[in-house]
Amino acid sequence: MTIELLEQERVDDLGRNGYRIIQHRKKFCFGVDAVLLAWFARVKEGDRVLDMGTGTGIIPILMQARAQEQKIPCHFTGLEIQEEMAQMAHRSVEMNGIQDSVDIVQGDIREASQLFGRTSFSVVTSNPPYMPGNHGLTNPSAAKAISRHEVLCTLEDVIRQTAQVLEPGGHFYMIHRPFRLIEIITVLTKYRLEPKRLQFVHPFADREANMVLVESVRGGGSMAKVEEPIIVYESPGVYTKKIYEIYGKPNPQTNR
Amino acid sequence: MTIELLEQERVDDLGRNGYRIIQHRKKFCFGVDAVLLAWFARVKEGDRVLDMGTGTGIIPILMQARAQEQKIPCHFTGLEIQEEMAQMAHRSVEMNGIQDSVDIVQGDIREASQLFGRTSFSVVTSNPPYMPGNHGLTNPSAAKAISRHEVLCTLEDVIRQTAQVLEPGGHFYMIHRPFRLIEIITVLTKYRLEPKRLQFVHPFADREANMVLVESVRGGGSMAKVEEPIIVYESPGVYTKKIYEIYGKPNPQTNR
Repeated sequence: MTIELLEQERVDDLGRNGYRIIQHRKKFCFGVDAVLLAWFARVKEGDRVLDMGTGTGIIPILMQARAQEQKIPCHFTGLEIQEEMAQMAHRSVEMNGIQDSVDIVQGDIREASQLFGRTSFSVVTSNPPYMPGNHGLTNPSAAKAISRHEVLCTLEDVIRQTAQVLEPGGHFYMIHRPFRLIEIITVLTKYRLEPKRLQFVHPFADREANMVLVESVRGGGSMAKVEEPIIVYESPGVYTKKIYEIYGKPNPQTNR
Repeated sequence: MTIELLEQERVDDLGRNGYRIIQHRKKFCFGVDAVLLAWFARVKEGDRVLDMGTGTGIIPILMQARAQEQKIPCHFTGLEIQEEMAQMAHRSVEMNGIQDSVDIVQGDIREASQLFGRTSFSVVTSNPPYMPGNHGLTNPSAAKAISRHEVLCTLEDVIRQTAQVLEPGGHFYMIHRPFRLIEIITVLTKYRLEPKRLQFVHPFADREANMVLVESVRGGGSMAKVEEPIIVYESPGVYTKKIYEIYGKPNPQTNR
C-alpha cells in the first residue's frame, strides 16, 4: 500500500506491533503524555473507545497496538477538529492497516454527543490542551496553539461531552497538569464522573509532579486511590526502568 | 519539676529539643502521621496556630520544637475534647516547660469558633479521624475510637470550623487518607479553603499512597502543586533518608 506523505510530514516508528505514525514537523508531535495515557487507560473485550481531540491519532493507535498484543477485541474512534490533522491521523491508521478497529472522525468536541449520540461509548480518553485559553501565551502556530491552549474547547467542554457520550459505569481516562488538579476534580464531580484512580508523574524522584493521570467512572462512588508515583528520569537523560516498561521497550541498562 | 504520671502512662523522648511526651499505653499513641504533619506545616513569626483534635498534644509540641530551633516566635493552641487526653497533653507541655507558647484547651471541635472567635488564628493544623463514623468498625476502646473514627466530629465539621477560626489568607494543614481525597477537596473548596499544595506518602516506592498531606489557603486561587512523593521505607524495616530527615534524626546509613 502506498501512503501519501505531504510536505513537512515524516513517519516515526512506534516500536509497538511494527506500527508507525505520520507527524508534521511544524505541528504538535506526540510526547510522553500520550504514551503515558495510552498505558494508563485500560480496555476490556467489546469496549467502544472514544479519544477526544486525537491529533495525530497517537492514543487510539497505541491503545489498539496494546489491545491487539493482549488479544482484546475492541473499537476505537478518534475525534479531531482540525481537518489536516484528522486526515493525517486517518493516513496513519491506513498505513498500519487497522481501519477495521480505528475510525478517525473530523468534528468538534463540543458536539460529540450530537455526532455520536448519548451513552455511545464505554471508554473515553483525552489528552486535552493544558493551558487556559485566555492565558495570553497562545502559540503563534495555530495547530500547536489548538493542541496546547484552550482555544477551541475548555476542560469543562471535554468533561461535559464525556459525561454525555459515556455509558453509566463507563471509564474516562485523562492526562493533565497538576496545577489544575483542584479544578479537574471539581468539574469531574460536577458532571458525576467520579475520580477513582490518580497517578502522578514526576520528572525526578525529588521534584514536584508535572503530569497527572486520572481515571473516573461515570456515576461511581467517591473512594479514590493514588497509585505509585511515576518517575521519568533516573538521572538527567537516563530514563527509569518504569518508563522503559511503559514504552514497551527493553531497558538498555538491564540488557547488557 | 515533678510531673505526675497516671497508671498505664509512659514518657517517650521526641528526639527534638530534649522534648518528651506522655502517652497512655491503652490509648491512641502518635504515629508517623503526626510527625509528617508537624514537618509539612509551616509557621512564620507571630503566627497563632490551632491544632484541631490535638490528642496527646504531639503536633503543637513538635511544631513548637521546630519553631524554637528556627527561632520563629509563635503561639500554639491544642483543642481536645477528651478530658483525660487534654490533661495528659497539658502535663506534657508542662514537662517540657513550654506553657508560655503552648495552650491546651478542652473543648469540642464543633464549637471552635464560639470558643476562640472567628478569624482568631493564622494557621490551623489537624490530624482528624480517618474513618467515616458509620463505618461499623468502631474501635472497642472509646479513646482510640474517637481518634480513629468520626464518632464525635466529621471531616466536614473540622473543615467548617477551620474556615471560621482562620483569618483570610490563613493556612490549613491536614493529613488524611488518599481514599477520601475527592471528598476532602470537595469539602475544602465548598468552605473556600483552596488546596494549594499536596504531598502523597507511599509506604514503598512501588505502592499506592496511604497518606496525603494537604495545605489549603482561606480564599486562595485554584492553582495547586503536588510535591515530590514521600517514600517511607527503602526496604522492609529500613526507613528512607527522607524519613530520617523528617524525624530530625541522623540517618544511620550515612553515619558510619
